[in-house]
Amino acid sequence: MDIKNELAVRAESAEDVVCRFLPDVEGFQGMIFDAMVYSVTAGGKRLRPILMNETYVMFGGNTEVIEPFMAAIEMIHTYSLVHDDLPAMDNDMLRRGKPTTHVAYGEAMGVLTGDALLNYAFETALDAYDAPNADPSTITTAIRILARKAGVFGMIGGQVVDVEAEKKQMEVTEDMLHFIYELKTGALIEASMMIGAALAGASEEEIEQIESVASKIGMAFQIQDDILDVEGDEAVLGKPVGSDERNHKVTYVTFAGIDKSKQEVKRLTDEAINELNSIPYKNEFLVELLNYLVYRDN
Amino acid sequence: MDIKNELAVRAESAEDVVCRFLPDVEGFQGMIFDAMVYSVTAGGKRLRPILMNETYVMFGGNTEVIEPFMAAIEMIHTYSLVHDDLPAMDNDMLRRGKPTTHVAYGEAMGVLTGDALLNYAFETALDAYDAPNADPSTITTAIRILARKAGVFGMIGGQVVDVEAEKKQMEVTEDMLHFIYELKTGALIEASMMIGAALAGASEEEIEQIESVASKIGMAFQIQDDILDVEGDEAVLGKPVGSDERNHKVTYVTFAGIDKSKQEVKRLTDEAINELNSIPYKNEFLVELLNYLVYRDN
Repeated sequence: MDIKNELAVRAESAEDVVCRFLPDVEGFQGMIFDAMVYSVTAGGKRLRPILMNETYVMFGGNTEVIEPFMAAIEMIHTYSLVHDDLPAMDNDMLRRGKPTTHVAYGEAMGVLTGDALLNYAFETALDAYDAPNADPSTITTAIRILARKAGVFGMIGGQVVDVEAEKKQMEVTEDMLHFIYELKTGALIEASMMIGAALAGASEEEIEQIESVASKIGMAFQIQDDILDVEGDEAVLGKPVGSDERNHKVTYVTFAGIDKSKQEVKRLTDEAINELNSIPYKNEFLVELLNYLVYRDN
Repeated sequence: MDIKNELAVRAESAEDVVCRFLPDVEGFQGMIFDAMVYSVTAGGKRLRPILMNETYVMFGGNTEVIEPFMAAIEMIHTYSLVHDDLPAMDNDMLRRGKPTTHVAYGEAMGVLTGDALLNYAFETALDAYDAPNADPSTITTAIRILARKAGVFGMIGGQVVDVEAEKKQMEVTEDMLHFIYELKTGALIEASMMIGAALAGASEEEIEQIESVASKIGMAFQIQDDILDVEGDEAVLGKPVGSDERNHKVTYVTFAGIDKSKQEVKRLTDEAINELNSIPYKNEFLVELLNYLVYRDN
Protein backbone atom coordinates (compact mmCIF):
# COMPACT_ATOMS: atom_id res chain seq x y z
CA MET A 1 0.00 0.00 0.00
CA ASP A 2 1.35 3.45 -0.94
CA ILE A 3 0.26 5.07 2.29
CA LYS A 4 1.28 8.61 1.38
CA ASN A 5 -0.71 8.47 -1.81
CA GLU A 6 -3.73 6.82 -0.16
CA LEU A 7 -3.63 9.45 2.57
CA ALA A 8 -3.49 12.28 0.05
CA VAL A 9 -6.59 10.95 -1.69
CA ARG A 10 -8.45 10.77 1.59
CA ALA A 11 -7.25 14.20 2.68
CA GLU A 12 -8.67 15.70 -0.49
CA SER A 13 -11.98 14.03 0.06
CA ALA A 14 -12.06 15.13 3.72
CA GLU A 15 -11.23 18.66 2.55
CA ASP A 16 -14.27 18.61 0.26
CA VAL A 17 -16.53 17.47 3.08
CA VAL A 18 -15.25 20.08 5.53
CA CYS A 19 -15.64 22.92 3.03
CA ARG A 20 -19.14 21.84 2.07
CA PHE A 21 -20.38 22.43 5.61
CA LEU A 22 -18.96 25.92 6.02
CA PRO A 23 -21.57 28.72 5.96
CA ASP A 24 -22.03 30.25 2.54
CA VAL A 25 -24.64 32.98 2.84
CA GLU A 26 -25.07 36.73 2.56
CA GLY A 27 -25.79 38.99 5.50
CA PHE A 28 -24.60 41.90 7.59
CA GLN A 29 -22.40 39.42 9.44
CA GLY A 30 -20.72 38.33 6.17
CA MET A 31 -17.24 39.06 7.49
CA ILE A 32 -17.50 36.29 10.08
CA PHE A 33 -18.33 33.79 7.35
CA ASP A 34 -15.23 34.95 5.44
CA ALA A 35 -13.08 34.63 8.55
CA MET A 36 -14.44 31.16 9.33
CA VAL A 37 -13.72 29.94 5.81
CA TYR A 38 -10.29 31.61 5.83
CA SER A 39 -9.38 29.90 9.09
CA VAL A 40 -10.61 26.43 8.19
CA THR A 41 -9.17 26.39 4.67
CA ALA A 42 -5.74 27.64 5.75
CA GLY A 43 -4.32 24.14 5.23
CA GLY A 44 -3.86 21.23 7.57
CA LYS A 45 -3.69 17.50 7.11
CA ARG A 46 -7.34 16.81 8.02
CA LEU A 47 -6.15 13.91 10.16
CA ARG A 48 -9.09 14.06 12.56
CA PRO A 49 -11.85 13.74 9.95
CA ILE A 50 -9.82 11.04 8.17
CA LEU A 51 -9.39 9.03 11.39
CA MET A 52 -13.10 9.49 12.09
CA ASN A 53 -14.17 8.28 8.68
CA GLU A 54 -11.78 5.31 8.66
CA THR A 55 -13.05 4.16 12.05
CA TYR A 56 -16.61 4.60 10.77
CA VAL A 57 -15.77 2.44 7.74
CA MET A 58 -14.06 -0.13 9.96
CA PHE A 59 -17.29 -0.67 11.90
CA GLY A 60 -19.28 -0.97 8.70
CA GLY A 61 -20.56 2.60 8.46
CA ASN A 62 -21.57 3.60 4.96
CA THR A 63 -23.89 6.63 4.96
CA GLU A 64 -23.33 10.37 4.81
CA VAL A 65 -24.27 10.82 8.47
CA ILE A 66 -20.53 10.88 9.18
CA GLU A 67 -19.95 13.99 7.07
CA PRO A 68 -21.30 16.72 9.36
CA PHE A 69 -19.21 15.21 12.15
CA MET A 70 -16.08 15.20 9.98
CA ALA A 71 -16.65 18.91 9.40
CA ALA A 72 -17.48 19.57 13.06
CA ILE A 73 -14.29 18.04 14.44
CA GLU A 74 -12.20 20.07 12.02
CA MET A 75 -14.07 23.27 13.01
CA ILE A 76 -13.29 22.57 16.66
CA HIS A 77 -9.63 21.82 15.88
CA THR A 78 -9.47 25.07 13.87
CA TYR A 79 -11.13 27.23 16.55
CA SER A 80 -8.57 25.97 19.06
CA LEU A 81 -5.75 27.06 16.73
CA VAL A 82 -7.36 30.47 16.07
CA HIS A 83 -7.65 31.20 19.79
CA ASP A 84 -4.22 29.71 20.49
CA ASP A 85 -2.67 32.15 18.00
CA LEU A 86 -4.21 35.23 19.70
CA PRO A 87 -1.87 37.85 21.18
CA ALA A 88 -3.08 36.91 24.69
CA MET A 89 -2.03 33.30 24.05
CA ASP A 90 0.90 32.36 21.76
CA ASN A 91 0.80 35.62 19.76
CA ASP A 92 1.54 33.87 16.47
CA MET A 93 1.48 35.92 13.29
CA LEU A 94 1.80 33.09 10.78
CA ARG A 95 0.35 29.61 10.52
CA ARG A 96 1.40 27.40 7.64
CA GLY A 97 2.87 30.47 5.97
CA LYS A 98 -0.37 32.48 6.01
CA PRO A 99 -1.28 35.36 8.33
CA THR A 100 -3.20 34.01 11.34
CA THR A 101 -6.87 34.90 11.64
CA HIS A 102 -6.40 37.73 14.14
CA VAL A 103 -3.70 39.25 11.90
CA ALA A 104 -5.89 39.02 8.81
CA TYR A 105 -9.17 40.14 10.44
CA GLY A 106 -8.22 41.98 13.62
CA GLU A 107 -8.02 40.72 17.17
CA ALA A 108 -11.70 41.15 18.04
CA MET A 109 -12.57 39.10 14.98
CA GLY A 110 -10.00 36.49 16.02
CA VAL A 111 -11.89 35.97 19.27
CA LEU A 112 -15.28 35.95 17.53
CA THR A 113 -14.17 33.63 14.71
CA GLY A 114 -13.06 31.04 17.26
CA ASP A 115 -16.36 31.38 19.12
CA ALA A 116 -18.26 31.14 15.87
CA LEU A 117 -16.42 27.97 14.77
CA LEU A 118 -16.95 26.24 18.10
CA ASN A 119 -20.65 27.06 18.08
CA TYR A 120 -21.01 26.20 14.40
CA ALA A 121 -19.37 22.82 14.99
CA PHE A 122 -22.29 21.92 17.24
CA GLU A 123 -24.84 23.36 14.80
CA THR A 124 -23.26 21.30 12.03
CA ALA A 125 -23.14 18.08 14.04
CA LEU A 126 -26.76 18.61 15.10
CA ASP A 127 -27.74 18.81 11.43
CA ALA A 128 -26.88 15.11 11.26
CA TYR A 129 -30.33 14.44 12.73
CA ASP A 130 -31.72 15.52 9.33
CA ALA A 131 -29.62 13.02 7.37
CA PRO A 132 -31.61 10.35 5.51
CA ASN A 133 -32.13 7.24 7.67
CA ALA A 134 -30.43 8.96 10.60
CA ASP A 135 -30.52 7.01 13.85
CA PRO A 136 -31.12 9.70 16.52
CA SER A 137 -29.66 7.70 19.37
CA THR A 138 -26.26 7.08 17.75
CA ILE A 139 -26.13 10.75 16.70
CA THR A 140 -26.81 11.82 20.27
CA THR A 141 -24.04 9.53 21.51
CA ALA A 142 -21.66 11.06 18.95
CA ILE A 143 -22.54 14.66 19.85
CA ARG A 144 -22.05 13.95 23.54
CA ILE A 145 -18.59 12.51 22.82
CA LEU A 146 -17.75 15.60 20.76
CA ALA A 147 -18.83 18.00 23.51
CA ARG A 148 -17.08 16.10 26.28
CA LYS A 149 -13.77 15.66 24.49
CA ALA A 150 -13.64 19.29 23.31
CA GLY A 151 -14.34 20.78 26.74
CA VAL A 152 -12.79 21.22 30.17
CA PHE A 153 -12.46 17.46 30.62
CA GLY A 154 -10.88 17.24 27.17
CA MET A 155 -9.05 19.62 24.86
CA ILE A 156 -9.75 22.88 26.74
CA GLY A 157 -8.66 21.24 30.00
CA GLY A 158 -5.27 20.37 28.48
CA GLN A 159 -4.94 23.80 26.93
CA VAL A 160 -5.61 25.49 30.28
CA VAL A 161 -2.82 23.59 32.03
CA ASP A 162 -0.40 24.17 29.13
CA VAL A 163 -1.11 27.92 29.04
CA GLU A 164 -1.04 28.30 32.82
CA ALA A 165 2.25 26.45 33.11
CA GLU A 166 3.81 28.72 30.52
CA LYS A 167 2.33 32.04 31.68
CA LYS A 168 3.23 31.37 35.30
CA GLN A 169 6.53 29.64 34.48
CA MET A 170 5.48 26.73 36.64
CA GLU A 171 7.63 23.67 36.93
CA VAL A 172 6.00 21.07 34.71
CA THR A 173 5.96 17.68 36.37
CA GLU A 174 5.81 14.41 34.48
CA ASP A 175 2.19 13.92 35.61
CA MET A 176 1.27 17.35 34.37
CA LEU A 177 2.95 16.79 31.00
CA HIS A 178 1.07 13.53 30.65
CA PHE A 179 -2.18 15.33 31.46
CA ILE A 180 -1.48 18.04 28.87
CA TYR A 181 -0.62 15.51 26.13
CA GLU A 182 -3.58 13.32 26.94
CA LEU A 183 -6.08 16.17 26.82
CA LYS A 184 -4.71 18.85 24.54
CA THR A 185 -3.75 16.51 21.68
CA GLY A 186 -5.27 13.20 22.67
CA ALA A 187 -8.86 14.18 23.39
CA LEU A 188 -9.77 15.21 19.84
CA ILE A 189 -8.10 12.12 18.38
CA GLU A 190 -10.13 10.02 20.80
CA ALA A 191 -13.28 11.95 19.87
CA SER A 192 -12.63 11.43 16.15
CA MET A 193 -12.27 7.67 16.37
CA MET A 194 -14.99 7.21 19.01
CA ILE A 195 -17.49 9.22 16.96
CA GLY A 196 -16.69 7.13 13.88
CA ALA A 197 -17.36 3.97 15.88
CA ALA A 198 -20.48 5.34 17.58
CA LEU A 199 -22.11 6.47 14.33
CA ALA A 200 -21.50 3.05 12.77
CA GLY A 201 -23.41 1.52 15.67
CA ALA A 202 -20.50 0.18 17.72
CA SER A 203 -21.37 -1.01 21.22
CA GLU A 204 -20.44 0.97 24.32
CA GLU A 205 -17.65 -1.54 24.98
CA GLU A 206 -16.29 -1.19 21.45
CA ILE A 207 -16.36 2.60 21.74
CA GLU A 208 -14.30 2.28 24.93
CA GLN A 209 -11.80 0.01 23.17
CA ILE A 210 -11.45 2.58 20.41
CA GLU A 211 -10.98 5.31 23.04
CA SER A 212 -8.08 3.33 24.48
CA VAL A 213 -6.52 2.78 21.03
CA ALA A 214 -6.86 6.48 20.18
CA SER A 215 -5.49 7.58 23.53
CA LYS A 216 -2.32 5.53 23.01
CA ILE A 217 -1.91 6.71 19.43
CA GLY A 218 -2.38 10.34 20.52
CA MET A 219 0.29 9.98 23.17
CA ALA A 220 2.72 8.19 20.82
CA PHE A 221 2.08 10.88 18.19
CA GLN A 222 2.95 13.62 20.66
CA ILE A 223 6.10 11.89 21.94
CA GLN A 224 7.22 11.38 18.34
CA ASP A 225 6.79 15.15 17.92
CA ASP A 226 9.21 15.67 20.79
CA ILE A 227 11.67 13.17 19.29
CA LEU A 228 11.54 14.84 15.88
CA ASP A 229 12.32 18.18 17.49
CA VAL A 230 15.54 16.66 18.82
CA GLU A 231 16.74 14.54 15.94
CA GLY A 232 14.49 15.21 12.96
CA ASP A 233 15.85 16.26 9.58
CA GLU A 234 15.11 19.96 9.08
CA ALA A 235 14.79 19.49 5.32
CA VAL A 236 12.18 16.72 5.77
CA LEU A 237 10.42 18.40 8.69
CA GLY A 238 10.16 21.74 6.93
CA LYS A 239 10.92 23.55 10.17
CA PRO A 240 13.94 24.10 12.43
CA VAL A 241 14.70 21.41 15.01
CA GLY A 242 15.86 22.04 18.56
CA SER A 243 13.18 24.67 19.25
CA ASP A 244 12.00 22.93 22.44
CA GLU A 245 15.47 23.09 23.94
CA ARG A 246 15.97 26.70 22.88
CA ASN A 247 12.62 27.64 24.44
CA HIS A 248 13.39 25.61 27.59
CA LYS A 249 10.23 23.66 26.88
CA VAL A 250 9.76 20.57 28.98
CA THR A 251 8.89 17.58 26.77
CA TYR A 252 8.65 13.86 27.12
CA VAL A 253 12.31 13.63 26.08
CA THR A 254 13.27 15.88 29.01
CA PHE A 255 12.00 13.27 31.46
CA ALA A 256 12.75 10.02 29.65
CA GLY A 257 15.66 10.76 27.35
CA ILE A 258 15.64 9.98 23.65
CA ASP A 259 16.05 6.19 23.78
CA LYS A 260 13.34 5.58 26.33
CA SER A 261 11.08 7.96 24.43
CA LYS A 262 11.49 5.87 21.30
CA GLN A 263 10.77 2.71 23.28
CA GLU A 264 7.63 4.34 24.66
CA VAL A 265 6.42 5.28 21.19
CA LYS A 266 6.91 1.68 20.11
CA ARG A 267 5.25 0.24 23.22
CA LEU A 268 2.20 2.50 22.94
CA THR A 269 1.84 1.91 19.23
CA ASP A 270 2.18 -1.87 19.50
CA GLU A 271 -0.42 -1.95 22.26
CA ALA A 272 -2.78 0.28 20.31
CA ILE A 273 -2.50 -1.82 17.14
CA ASN A 274 -2.95 -5.05 19.13
CA GLU A 275 -6.07 -3.66 20.77
CA LEU A 276 -7.37 -2.51 17.41
CA ASN A 277 -6.71 -5.95 15.90
CA SER A 278 -8.57 -7.63 18.76
CA ILE A 279 -11.81 -5.99 17.57
CA PRO A 280 -13.59 -8.25 15.08
CA TYR A 281 -14.02 -5.42 12.53
CA LYS A 282 -11.16 -4.63 10.19
CA ASN A 283 -9.82 -1.69 8.22
CA GLU A 284 -6.34 -2.37 6.91
CA PHE A 285 -5.81 1.22 5.86
CA LEU A 286 -6.54 2.47 9.39
CA VAL A 287 -3.83 0.19 10.83
CA GLU A 288 -1.34 1.41 8.23
CA LEU A 289 -2.36 5.00 8.89
CA LEU A 290 -1.83 4.77 12.64
CA ASN A 291 1.64 3.27 12.12
CA TYR A 292 2.47 5.94 9.57
CA LEU A 293 1.30 8.77 11.83
CA VAL A 294 3.32 7.62 14.78
CA TYR A 295 6.54 6.78 12.94
CA ARG A 296 6.38 9.77 10.60
CA ASP A 297 9.51 11.79 9.90
CA ASN A 298 7.69 15.09 9.44
CA MET B 1 -49.16 40.58 42.17
CA ASP B 2 -45.99 41.99 43.71
CA ILE B 3 -43.93 41.44 40.60
CA LYS B 4 -40.61 42.58 42.07
CA ASN B 5 -40.95 40.19 44.94
CA GLU B 6 -42.14 37.31 42.76
CA LEU B 7 -39.24 37.94 40.41
CA ALA B 8 -36.74 37.94 43.27
CA VAL B 9 -38.00 34.55 44.45
CA ARG B 10 -37.65 33.13 40.96
CA ALA B 11 -34.22 34.70 40.48
CA GLU B 12 -33.00 32.97 43.62
CA SER B 13 -34.32 29.64 42.47
CA ALA B 14 -32.78 30.13 38.99
CA GLU B 15 -29.50 31.02 40.69
CA ASP B 16 -29.58 27.72 42.58
CA VAL B 17 -30.19 25.77 39.39
CA VAL B 18 -27.42 27.53 37.45
CA CYS B 19 -24.87 27.01 40.24
CA ARG B 20 -25.77 23.36 40.63
CA PHE B 21 -24.66 22.63 37.06
CA LEU B 22 -21.28 24.33 37.28
CA PRO B 23 -18.31 21.93 37.38
CA ASP B 24 -17.16 21.12 40.90
CA VAL B 25 -14.22 18.75 40.63
CA GLU B 26 -10.50 18.55 41.33
CA GLY B 27 -7.85 18.36 38.65
CA PHE B 28 -4.82 20.00 37.10
CA GLN B 29 -7.23 22.25 35.23
CA GLY B 30 -8.84 23.43 38.52
CA MET B 31 -8.26 27.08 37.72
CA ILE B 32 -10.65 26.96 34.77
CA PHE B 33 -13.38 25.64 37.06
CA ASP B 34 -12.72 28.54 39.44
CA ALA B 35 -12.84 31.03 36.60
CA MET B 36 -16.07 29.56 35.23
CA VAL B 37 -17.77 29.73 38.63
CA TYR B 38 -16.39 33.24 39.24
CA SER B 39 -17.77 34.46 35.91
CA VAL B 40 -21.21 32.88 36.21
CA THR B 41 -21.78 33.85 39.83
CA ALA B 42 -20.71 37.47 39.35
CA GLY B 43 -24.33 38.56 39.58
CA GLY B 44 -26.97 39.15 36.94
CA LYS B 45 -30.74 38.99 36.93
CA ARG B 46 -31.00 35.43 35.54
CA LEU B 47 -33.72 36.71 33.21
CA ARG B 48 -33.05 34.13 30.52
CA PRO B 49 -33.45 31.03 32.72
CA ILE B 50 -36.50 32.63 34.35
CA LEU B 51 -38.13 33.34 30.98
CA MET B 52 -37.29 29.79 29.90
CA ASN B 53 -38.81 28.21 32.99
CA GLU B 54 -41.95 30.39 32.91
CA THR B 55 -42.57 29.49 29.28
CA TYR B 56 -42.02 25.84 30.17
CA VAL B 57 -44.58 26.12 32.99
CA MET B 58 -47.00 27.95 30.67
CA PHE B 59 -47.02 24.96 28.31
CA GLY B 60 -47.55 22.55 31.18
CA GLY B 61 -43.94 21.49 31.70
CA ASN B 62 -43.28 20.11 35.17
CA THR B 63 -40.09 18.02 35.27
CA GLU B 64 -36.47 18.79 35.95
CA VAL B 65 -35.50 18.37 32.30
CA ILE B 66 -35.66 22.16 32.05
CA GLU B 67 -32.88 22.67 34.60
CA PRO B 68 -29.78 21.81 32.54
CA PHE B 69 -31.11 24.14 29.84
CA MET B 70 -31.64 26.97 32.36
CA ALA B 71 -28.00 26.56 33.33
CA ALA B 72 -26.85 26.26 29.72
CA ILE B 73 -28.46 29.49 28.54
CA GLU B 74 -26.90 31.39 31.43
CA MET B 75 -23.47 29.88 30.64
CA ILE B 76 -23.80 31.07 27.06
CA HIS B 77 -24.91 34.53 28.16
CA THR B 78 -21.96 34.66 30.57
CA TYR B 79 -19.38 33.50 28.02
CA SER B 80 -20.53 36.27 25.68
CA LEU B 81 -19.95 38.84 28.45
CA VAL B 82 -16.53 37.38 29.35
CA HIS B 83 -15.34 37.62 25.74
CA ASP B 84 -17.03 41.01 25.28
CA ASP B 85 -15.04 42.39 28.22
CA LEU B 86 -11.66 41.29 26.76
CA PRO B 87 -9.08 43.97 25.91
CA ALA B 88 -9.51 43.17 22.20
CA MET B 89 -13.22 43.87 22.48
CA ASP B 90 -14.66 46.42 24.97
CA ASN B 91 -11.68 46.27 27.34
CA ASP B 92 -13.86 46.49 30.45
CA MET B 93 -12.20 46.14 33.85
CA LEU B 94 -15.32 45.93 36.00
CA ARG B 95 -18.67 44.21 35.63
CA ARG B 96 -21.29 44.74 38.31
CA GLY B 97 -18.58 46.19 40.53
CA LYS B 98 -16.31 43.13 40.35
CA PRO B 99 -13.12 42.72 38.31
CA THR B 100 -13.93 41.13 34.96
CA THR B 101 -12.72 37.60 34.33
CA HIS B 102 -9.66 38.58 32.29
CA VAL B 103 -8.64 41.05 35.01
CA ALA B 104 -9.06 38.47 37.76
CA TYR B 105 -7.48 35.52 35.92
CA GLY B 106 -5.37 37.02 33.13
CA GLU B 107 -6.20 37.57 29.50
CA ALA B 108 -5.37 34.06 28.26
CA MET B 109 -7.71 32.67 30.91
CA GLY B 110 -10.36 35.17 29.85
CA VAL B 111 -10.33 33.67 26.36
CA LEU B 112 -10.29 30.10 27.67
CA THR B 113 -13.01 30.68 30.27
CA GLY B 114 -15.36 31.95 27.57
CA ASP B 115 -14.52 28.94 25.39
CA ALA B 116 -15.01 26.61 28.34
CA LEU B 117 -18.42 28.08 29.24
CA LEU B 118 -19.70 27.88 25.67
CA ASN B 119 -18.58 24.27 25.36
CA TYR B 120 -19.85 23.38 28.82
CA ALA B 121 -23.25 24.86 28.00
CA PHE B 122 -23.63 22.19 25.32
CA GLU B 123 -22.30 19.45 27.61
CA THR B 124 -24.80 20.52 30.25
CA ALA B 125 -27.75 20.69 27.89
CA LEU B 126 -26.79 17.28 26.48
CA ASP B 127 -26.96 15.85 30.00
CA ALA B 128 -30.71 16.44 29.81
CA TYR B 129 -30.92 13.17 27.86
CA ASP B 130 -30.14 11.43 31.17
CA ALA B 131 -33.03 13.10 33.04
CA PRO B 132 -35.71 10.71 34.29
CA ASN B 133 -38.49 10.26 31.71
CA ALA B 134 -36.59 12.42 29.24
CA ASP B 135 -38.12 12.63 25.77
CA PRO B 136 -35.10 12.56 23.42
CA SER B 137 -36.86 14.23 20.53
CA THR B 138 -37.93 17.36 22.45
CA ILE B 139 -34.44 17.57 23.96
CA THR B 140 -32.90 17.43 20.50
CA THR B 141 -35.24 20.19 19.33
CA ALA B 142 -34.23 22.31 22.32
CA ILE B 143 -30.49 21.79 21.79
CA ARG B 144 -30.79 22.72 18.14
CA ILE B 145 -32.58 25.94 19.07
CA LEU B 146 -29.84 26.72 21.59
CA ALA B 147 -27.05 26.16 19.06
CA ARG B 148 -28.74 28.12 16.29
CA LYS B 149 -29.67 31.14 18.40
CA ALA B 150 -26.24 31.35 20.04
CA GLY B 151 -24.29 31.22 16.77
CA VAL B 152 -23.56 33.21 13.64
CA PHE B 153 -27.26 33.35 12.74
CA GLY B 154 -28.03 34.46 16.30
CA MET B 155 -26.09 36.12 19.10
CA ILE B 156 -22.59 35.89 17.59
CA GLY B 157 -23.91 37.28 14.30
CA GLY B 158 -25.23 40.38 16.09
CA GLN B 159 -22.05 40.73 18.09
CA VAL B 160 -19.92 40.60 14.92
CA VAL B 161 -21.83 43.46 13.29
CA ASP B 162 -21.78 45.52 16.50
CA VAL B 163 -18.04 45.06 16.98
CA GLU B 164 -17.21 45.63 13.32
CA ALA B 165 -19.26 48.82 13.19
CA GLU B 166 -17.45 50.18 16.21
CA LYS B 167 -13.90 49.07 15.32
CA LYS B 168 -14.21 50.36 11.77
CA GLN B 169 -16.27 53.42 12.73
CA MET B 170 -18.81 52.47 10.12
CA GLU B 171 -21.99 54.44 9.72
CA VAL B 172 -24.69 52.35 11.38
CA THR B 173 -27.86 52.31 9.31
CA GLU B 174 -31.31 51.71 10.75
CA ASP B 175 -31.38 48.26 9.14
CA MET B 176 -28.04 47.40 10.67
CA LEU B 177 -29.13 48.57 14.13
CA HIS B 178 -32.25 46.47 13.84
CA PHE B 179 -30.12 43.48 12.89
CA ILE B 180 -27.80 44.00 15.86
CA TYR B 181 -30.69 44.33 18.33
CA GLU B 182 -32.53 41.37 16.91
CA LEU B 183 -29.52 39.07 17.08
CA LYS B 184 -27.25 40.32 19.84
CA THR B 185 -29.98 40.74 22.46
CA GLY B 186 -33.02 39.15 20.88
CA ALA B 187 -31.67 35.76 19.88
CA LEU B 188 -30.99 34.45 23.40
CA ILE B 189 -34.36 35.72 24.65
CA GLU B 190 -35.98 33.89 21.75
CA ALA B 191 -33.93 30.79 22.54
CA SER B 192 -34.93 30.91 26.21
CA MET B 193 -38.66 31.05 25.56
CA MET B 194 -38.57 28.67 22.58
CA ILE B 195 -36.63 26.06 24.55
CA GLY B 196 -39.13 26.32 27.42
CA ALA B 197 -41.97 25.72 24.96
CA ALA B 198 -40.15 22.92 23.10
CA LEU B 199 -39.28 20.96 26.24
CA ALA B 200 -42.90 21.15 27.40
CA GLY B 201 -43.92 19.51 24.14
CA ALA B 202 -45.25 22.58 22.30
CA SER B 203 -45.94 22.10 18.59
CA GLU B 204 -43.69 23.55 15.90
CA GLU B 205 -46.33 26.21 15.26
CA GLU B 206 -46.50 27.14 18.94
CA ILE B 207 -42.71 27.36 19.13
CA GLU B 208 -42.82 29.78 16.19
CA GLN B 209 -45.48 31.88 17.93
CA ILE B 210 -43.27 32.04 21.02
CA GLU B 211 -40.32 33.02 18.84
CA SER B 212 -42.33 35.95 17.52
CA VAL B 213 -43.40 37.01 21.03
CA ALA B 214 -39.83 36.81 22.28
CA SER B 215 -38.45 38.67 19.29
CA LYS B 216 -40.79 41.61 19.94
CA ILE B 217 -40.08 41.61 23.66
CA GLY B 218 -36.34 41.52 22.99
CA MET B 219 -36.60 44.49 20.65
CA ALA B 220 -38.84 46.48 23.03
CA PHE B 221 -36.44 45.67 25.89
CA GLN B 222 -33.50 47.02 23.91
CA ILE B 223 -35.31 50.21 22.82
CA GLN B 224 -36.33 50.80 26.44
CA ASP B 225 -32.62 50.55 27.27
CA ASP B 226 -31.95 53.36 24.80
CA ILE B 227 -34.79 55.45 26.26
CA LEU B 228 -33.52 54.98 29.82
CA ASP B 229 -30.08 56.15 28.75
CA VAL B 230 -31.68 59.43 27.63
CA GLU B 231 -34.22 60.11 30.35
CA GLY B 232 -33.71 57.54 33.09
CA ASP B 233 -33.18 58.48 36.73
CA GLU B 234 -29.52 57.91 37.59
CA ALA B 235 -30.40 57.06 41.19
CA VAL B 236 -32.87 54.38 40.09
CA LEU B 237 -30.75 53.12 37.20
CA GLY B 238 -27.65 52.84 39.33
CA LYS B 239 -25.50 54.12 36.46
CA PRO B 240 -24.94 57.43 34.66
CA VAL B 241 -27.35 58.38 31.89
CA GLY B 242 -26.38 60.05 28.61
CA SER B 243 -23.52 57.63 27.94
CA ASP B 244 -24.77 56.77 24.45
CA GLU B 245 -24.70 60.44 23.41
CA ARG B 246 -21.29 61.01 24.97
CA ASN B 247 -19.93 57.95 23.15
CA HIS B 248 -21.62 59.00 19.88
CA LYS B 249 -23.37 55.67 19.95
CA VAL B 250 -26.17 55.29 17.42
CA THR B 251 -29.29 53.94 19.13
CA TYR B 252 -32.93 53.52 18.28
CA VAL B 253 -33.58 56.99 19.72
CA THR B 254 -31.10 58.48 17.24
CA PHE B 255 -33.29 57.36 14.34
CA ALA B 256 -36.78 57.65 15.79
CA GLY B 257 -36.55 60.29 18.51
CA ILE B 258 -37.75 59.74 22.04
CA ASP B 259 -41.52 59.91 21.48
CA LYS B 260 -41.61 57.53 18.56
CA SER B 261 -39.29 55.19 20.46
CA LYS B 262 -41.77 55.05 23.33
CA GLN B 263 -44.60 54.39 20.90
CA GLU B 264 -42.58 51.57 19.35
CA VAL B 265 -41.95 49.97 22.75
CA LYS B 266 -45.69 50.10 23.40
CA ARG B 267 -46.62 48.78 19.97
CA LEU B 268 -44.17 45.86 20.16
CA THR B 269 -45.18 44.97 23.71
CA ASP B 270 -48.91 45.11 22.98
CA GLU B 271 -48.45 42.90 19.96
CA ALA B 272 -46.28 40.46 21.88
CA ILE B 273 -48.76 40.17 24.75
CA ASN B 274 -51.67 39.77 22.33
CA GLU B 275 -49.86 37.01 20.52
CA LEU B 276 -49.02 35.36 23.82
CA ASN B 277 -52.64 35.58 24.95
CA SER B 278 -53.83 34.01 21.71
CA ILE B 279 -52.09 30.77 22.68
CA PRO B 280 -54.47 28.52 24.65
CA TYR B 281 -51.94 27.97 27.45
CA LYS B 282 -51.67 30.54 30.20
CA ASN B 283 -49.11 31.81 32.68
CA GLU B 284 -50.22 35.04 34.31
CA PHE B 285 -46.81 35.66 35.85
CA LEU B 286 -45.10 35.47 32.45
CA VAL B 287 -47.41 38.19 31.06
CA GLU B 288 -46.71 40.39 34.08
CA LEU B 289 -43.00 39.71 33.77
CA LEU B 290 -42.82 40.70 30.11
CA ASN B 291 -44.65 43.95 30.85
CA TYR B 292 -42.37 44.61 33.78
CA LEU B 293 -39.21 43.94 31.80
CA VAL B 294 -40.18 46.25 28.99
CA TYR B 295 -41.46 49.14 31.09
CA ARG B 296 -38.77 48.85 33.74
CA ASP B 297 -37.11 52.00 35.08
CA ASN B 298 -33.75 50.33 35.71
